Amino acid sequence: MAEGISLEELQLAARNHGMPLEALRWDITPIGLHYLLTHYDIPEVDGDAWRLEVDGLVARSLSLSLDDLRGRPAVELTVTMECAGNGRAQMEPHVVSQPWLLEAVGTARWRGVTVTSVLEEAGVLAEAVEIVFTGLDRGVEGEEEQSYARSLPVAEALAGDAILAYEVNGVPLPPQHGFPLRLVVPGWYGMTSVKWLARLSVVAEPFDGYQMRQAYRLRSEEDEVGEPLRRIAPRSLLVPPGIPEFLSRSRVVEPGWCELRGRAWSGEGEIVGVEVSADGGETWASAELGAAALGRWAWRSWSFAWDAEPGEHELCSRARDAAGNEQPLASPWNLGGYVNNAVQRVRVTVADRSPAV
Amino acid sequence: MAEGISLEELQLAARNHGMPLEALRWDITPIGLHYLLTHYDIPEVDGDAWRLEVDGLVARSLSLSLDDLRGRPAVELTVTMECAGNGRAQMEPHVVSQPWLLEAVGTARWRGVTVTSVLEEAGVLAEAVEIVFTGLDRGVEGEEEQSYARSLPVAEALAGDAILAYEVNGVPLPPQHGFPLRLVVPGWYGMTSVKWLARLSVVAEPFDGYQMRQAYRLRSEEDEVGEPLRRIAPRSLLVPPGIPEFLSRSRVVEPGWCELRGRAWSGEGEIVGVEVSADGGETWASAELGAAALGRWAWRSWSFAWDAEPGEHELCSRARDAAGNEQPLASPWNLGGYVNNAVQRVRVTVADRSPAV
Repeated sequence: MAEGISLEELQLAARNHGMPLEALRWDITPIGLHYLLTHYDIPEVDGDAWRLEVDGLVARSLSLSLDDLRGRPAVELTVTMECAGNGRAQMEPHVVSQPWLLEAVGTARWRGVTVTSVLEEAGVLAEAVEIVFTGLDRGVEGEEEQSYARSLPVAEALAGDAILAYEVNGVPLPPQHGFPLRLVVPGWYGMTSVKWLARLSVVAEPFDGYQMRQAYRLRSEEDEVGEPLRRIAPRSLLVPPGIPEFLSRSRVVEPGWCELRGRAWSGEGEIVGVEVSADGGETWASAELGAAALGRWAWRSWSFAWDAEPGEHELCSRARDAAGNEQPLASPWNLGGYVNNAVQRVRVTVADRSPAV
Repeated sequence: MAEGISLEELQLAARNHGMPLEALRWDITPIGLHYLLTHYDIPEVDGDAWRLEVDGLVARSLSLSLDDLRGRPAVELTVTMECAGNGRAQMEPHVVSQPWLLEAVGTARWRGVTVTSVLEEAGVLAEAVEIVFTGLDRGVEGEEEQSYARSLPVAEALAGDAILAYEVNGVPLPPQHGFPLRLVVPGWYGMTSVKWLARLSVVAEPFDGYQMRQAYRLRSEEDEVGEPLRRIAPRSLLVPPGIPEFLSRSRVVEPGWCELRGRAWSGEGEIVGVEVSADGGETWASAELGAAALGRWAWRSWSFAWDAEPGEHELCSRARDAAGNEQPLASPWNLGGYVNNAVQRVRVTVADRSPAV
């Protein structure tokens, strides 16, 4: 486990926010509890002076103000977003980067315009291959000074549900979520959903910026090309039952029937099943899935009636999606510490009495 | 420095949010960037069923709904709040608890009713000594199962500016800030401002609950009684200049005149001076204080024109308050890792060229 987190990693953990897991109880994560990963600094943006530039291989370049975008037909999407590095701090051997345990997730209602509508207005030319999304956040990474930038294949940008969002949970984007405009690509890991958008450039070659070429690839060695990360692998997490001990975060539960609740999600396909184990993954039983009321791109609630007997227990849950993916008990190591979707383990002590009131 | 943070401490760092220091640029910290320390879990509270009970040594016990409170004369206060453990992870020898570096701070506009008005309505009896504020958050700490509770002397509660807040930055309290009601005691460390308030009890003896008796005391050994923590010691922090390197968070600045900006605050007295050093604390020069436009209980902005010459530098700032307190270069160790207000040190590399665009 993650013994020996360095000062550098702690600096990242202190500024990048996880979602406390009791927040899994809310369909929509309250603002301030959604996870946040900021590669560089949160930029200060003057919304009045800001423009979104759309250029490159287009019939008409565009320069759009926030009012221009707000004046267009709006769409709203409920999206569960997760960092590709979620689970990194539980990987062995240790990977040095933002040390996420399991909290790098959240679900929000994003409102904006479709990427498709903007690209159709600009007129994507036939030789276009990718769209490059560039943010206003700037820093140094891998010894390269850069603005954060990621690309999507044209087909994905045109066919998918991606939106350019200017509101979250009914309010204008707060600075940390990308004010005044961000990309939201449902079903993909969070690095794709570029914040503080400044530019969409349509290009003829696959974009090889740092965040595509070096970061966010599954590989075992530095000189390997590896596979780019895209869609979110299935995961299920529990609302931690009972009450916590302050320092260890271990849980104390009253004996008797206890309703375990949680959420499950996958970017690869709909969630079709969640199983629960109360003995550390030895035996499993099916949980009951809640209604898919939040739509295809949001997490699914689940519940399980557990007869909590006095003693020590290790609770686990695992999700399965319609594409046949299931969470593993252990996830294969990789250089970047990505996609560790091994089942969660929650240590619980069931008291042999009703706790004092 | 904080090499060797354990998994348990990382669990705390992952769920307790720091304010990324670039957010020092905003007078009022945007919701979602203010620091958060949650001792146990964020409770789920039904605002319609909730009541604030006021009882103990009062002429009239009260049971107040949120509408009752909203119907009374409201006050609004801008308050800089800081955790007493801010700076803990930089203490030597290492103290095991929430491993704050310097981000446990934020400034918000709190709206609610004065504590005084509620106590006057209830009628505090002559033998009263303290008011105990109890929250709905429940957990185990120091092997004691408890609801989070802290007390204030009657004189402090009646004479001070403390409020019972139901709004922050113009919106109802989000769950993580204490919905539906929290105490806000300006000038005191954050542990005093009990969230998810359920009860105010007027008592005849100093309250000896865990959070008064064990936690939040300055002492060197377990069997020492120690001094209770109260008001915030002075601190100044810089908006980190230039751009960051992702992993190390070290800063790269362009050569030439650079406006350093920051904030300073103290609960002991108004800020009367801020000094800046560009050589790690060898030499100091006065910064210019901004207007005290946010009021007595909020941080004060400051700025300093720095001629950034190519090379490595260590930037520091230190605050001085009207009560004669000044930040030290090193803060004395204590068992809980509290009140480490030693001057911040920001490593900066000034490039010998203009950075590539």
